[in-house]
Amino acid sequence: MSTTLTDYPAAVQEEVARVRAVVSDLHAELPRWGLVVWTAGNVSQRVPNPDVPDGSADLFVIKPSGVSYDDLTPADMVVCDLDGTLVDGTRAPSSDTAAHAYVYRHMPEVGGVVHTHSTYATAWAARGEEIPCVLTMMADEFGGPVPVGPFAIIGDDSIGRGIVETLSGHRSPAVLMRNHGPFTIGKDARAAVKAAAMVEEVARTVHVSRQLGEPVPIEQQHIDSLYDRYQNVYGQQPATTEGQA
Amino acid sequence: MSTTLTDYPAAVQEEVARVRAVVSDLHAELPRWGLVVWTAGNVSQRVPNPDVPDGSADLFVIKPSGVSYDDLTPADMVVCDLDGTLVDGTRAPSSDTAAHAYVYRHMPEVGGVVHTHSTYATAWAARGEEIPCVLTMMADEFGGPVPVGPFAIIGDDSIGRGIVETLSGHRSPAVLMRNHGPFTIGKDARAAVKAAAMVEEVARTVHVSRQLGEPVPIEQQHIDSLYDRYQNVYGQQPATTEGQA
Amino acid sequence: MSTTLTDYPAAVQEEVARVRAVVSDLHAELPRWGLVVWTAGNVSQRVPNPDVPDGSADLFVIKPSGVSYDDLTPADMVVCDLDGTLVDGTRAPSSDTAAHAYVYRHMPEVGGVVHTHSTYATAWAARGEEIPCVLTMMADEFGGPVPVGPFAIIGDDSIGRGIVETLSGHRSPAVLMRNHGPFTIGKDARAAVKAAAMVEEVARTVHVSRQLGEPVPIEQQHIDSLYDRYQNVYGQQPATTEGQA
Amino acid sequence: MSTTLTDYPAAVQEEVARVRAVVSDLHAELPRWGLVVWTAGNVSQRVPNPDVPDGSADLFVIKPSGVSYDDLTPADMVVCDLDGTLVDGTRAPSSDTAAHAYVYRHMPEVGGVVHTHSTYATAWAARGEEIPCVLTMMADEFGGPVPVGPFAIIGDDSIGRGIVETLSGHRSPAVLMRNHGPFTIGKDARAAVKAAAMVEEVARTVHVSRQLGEPVPIEQQHIDSLYDRYQNVYGQQPATTEGQA
Repeated sequence: MSTTLTDYPAAVQEEVARVRAVVSDLHAELPRWGLVVWTAGNVSQRVPNPDVPDGSADLFVIKPSGVSYDDLTPADMVVCDLDGTLVDGTRAPSSDTAAHAYVYRHMPEVGGVVHTHSTYATAWAARGEEIPCVLTMMADEFGGPVPVGPFAIIGDDSIGRGIVETLSGHRSPAVLMRNHGPFTIGKDARAAVKAAAMVEEVARTVHVSRQLGEPVPIEQQHIDSLYDRYQNVYGQQPATTEGQA
Repeated sequence: MSTTLTDYPAAVQEEVARVRAVVSDLHAELPRWGLVVWTAGNVSQRVPNPDVPDGSADLFVIKPSGVSYDDLTPADMVVCDLDGTLVDGTRAPSSDTAAHAYVYRHMPEVGGVVHTHSTYATAWAARGEEIPCVLTMMADEFGGPVPVGPFAIIGDDSIGRGIVETLSGHRSPAVLMRNHGPFTIGKDARAAVKAAAMVEEVARTVHVSRQLGEPVPIEQQHIDSLYDRYQNVYGQQPATTEGQA
Repeated sequence: MSTTLTDYPAAVQEEVARVRAVVSDLHAELPRWGLVVWTAGNVSQRVPNPDVPDGSADLFVIKPSGVSYDDLTPADMVVCDLDGTLVDGTRAPSSDTAAHAYVYRHMPEVGGVVHTHSTYATAWAARGEEIPCVLTMMADEFGGPVPVGPFAIIGDDSIGRGIVETLSGHRSPAVLMRNHGPFTIGKDARAAVKAAAMVEEVARTVHVSRQLGEPVPIEQQHIDSLYDRYQNVYGQQPATTEGQA
Repeated sequence: MSTTLTDYPAAVQEEVARVRAVVSDLHAELPRWGLVVWTAGNVSQRVPNPDVPDGSADLFVIKPSGVSYDDLTPADMVVCDLDGTLVDGTRAPSSDTAAHAYVYRHMPEVGGVVHTHSTYATAWAARGEEIPCVLTMMADEFGGPVPVGPFAIIGDDSIGRGIVETLSGHRSPAVLMRNHGPFTIGKDARAAVKAAAMVEEVARTVHVSRQLGEPVPIEQQHIDSLYDRYQNVYGQQPATTEGQA
């Protein structure tokens, strides 16, 4: 007999309601920053369980498949367990649900995942070429180049495995899955959406720069110093640490 | 004596009213996704007749010629028969009406047609070069490269014939008419509009990718597998089959 | 003693009020189609005089200098005579007023003039290179390549003279002034704004096409046939002749 | 004991309130013209003191760090002294505050500073290449090429010093900080925001022009003449001098 949301503690059900609203709202950022066309792209966020030691309800909220961005509401968001099985929702989950689930199963520190086919990031992915770190904002946000993940076909765990193998131990919160597009991770869905917007921006800027010559490399020591400052100094003031500027 | 809409059964007249609203609304998607400038572009949809065996009223609804996108209303949409002759409407039909009519006459499975001059798709069309299938979303949506149709002059059936000859038996719902621009087809106008948005997106992404090198090809077996899954597995759940994501 | 608007017949004053509203509204099309940044760009339209044989009041309405697009109202529009002298208005006329005035003095068939620095058209202008006619929509709208005008400095009649010398006897309603940007003309301001939107679109599409190879030329006979049809067949139905589609 | 805003004269406190509103409103221009992604970018303006001889309160207003553009209000803006120390505000100042403060300390004629990572300007900055003056609008606004500043790491005065050393005695109100992005200055924040919009526009237009060949240079005498006219002739009519057009 399958599990339903009503089998979960009340605290978890409340968190689900909150996360549904967060995930629904964040989807508006994808068309806003030009990251998606039609119904492409998806955002998910892990559901916390305040009553257990590791703080996780082993659930996540994700966009339903094939719904127009204009029509997304919190109630449309679907809830899945960490195997990607539907637990609550009236619609079918995104076709990328298995990849999100794999990331949540294998990267406990990840609280949000985003996938887009944003143009410039996908263009690098189609060549299977990492984005070199030639911008100070790349050093800040990605701590080095944005790496390429393997070619993987939808339908089993190979996309999820490719994401996890590429990003584990890597500074970058973004991976360019070959011939496919970027996946980004973060401590929550908002951080992953920010990484999705930033990876497209650096993909575009470095592309444009290289069209007329070679960008000047940034020395590794400067990359390290910028990354360290952005992640740590900023980290001391949680309320104001979100961004460039 | 020419036929007028009042000569048609009431059921058809009701369908015409419904399709007029659908076609009018879908035109808003063209500027929204950056596919058209000024009054360029047009969407049409076949009108069903629930009372006949093949389900078709042998009519379609199309945009009038030269009206600003801001000003389009359902009442402005014009109704033509499958020869492209005006049956109902206060305005002249789009100058591309003959091409739409030819497609409806020769491809009974097609329920919607869209034409744009979207920038990147038209740029490939101007070189007479098909778009190679180097993105998983292309394999999903187009099942291979996006083909080029012949150079054809407006004024007779040559554009329609070029569309039909190129797309018949082809997986792609989009053809790049040489020196002209993309035409897309679908089971209804919404599907054809989606194909118009997607063909511009893949035209742009592959263009950008090729500007700095060569995209990695996707093996034919993977293209087949992705296309098959997207068209068929998705096809089992009609309400949720519309899109990437 | 200088002339003021109150010296003009009542019929002309009424026309001025109408043209002020038309010109003010049309300015919104410039940012809408991405043709201008900040306060750049300007639209003007000739004022008719219904009481005289040639139908012209020898006045035109133009945008004031340096006002934000958000803040433009009909009352802000200024009225100049065909020497470019201010006749009515509380603001200084656009710094390009002398060029507009020169066009109205020397091309009586022109009823509207537009100037922008739209990106792709200006990029061709910076190379001093005409845009080749490799798109059917270019054949329709421009009847051939978009020509380049001379380098000319603001401050005397050299810009106006360059526009008139280049466009007189030419099919194209657009000229790319070298190192400067496009000027377009039309029977009224709306037609000139349309030409400004279309010249940017063809400048962009041909640019993109040439980035990865050479567009296929269109034979001169086909260009002539497309242009003739678009200008003449369309011309028989004035209410529906405005556009592509 | 640190200084607070209440230690300042009432006239200065009133100016702070006014400048907070100006700076808050101007931030909306950054996403409007496509100059920023997510929370990147910042605008500041010097606070005048009408009661002292040099007219300066030795304070400036700047954006807080990491707040979404949608959520910025005048109350969120923070006030710093010319060492970059927070004087008033409930949020942490932008991480670029030290650079703004350095400019205000060393360039008394500067009343506004803007920083973005706008795509095309940053692409030139990544190559460390100045933008050549091949457009009349560049001659007008920048009076020559847009210069490149040194590579500098956030955390001390090196960014501010690089801006001041590059722009002192230079006509251009914009500097491309290497591998980083543009900083612009102006008599007030509005002028600096305009320069930020214009530097991106000329960076893009010259980039596009060079993609297919070499832009025609403009002779130095013409650059001087255009710059002189734009800065001086325009300067005689303060209310109408703001822009191209």
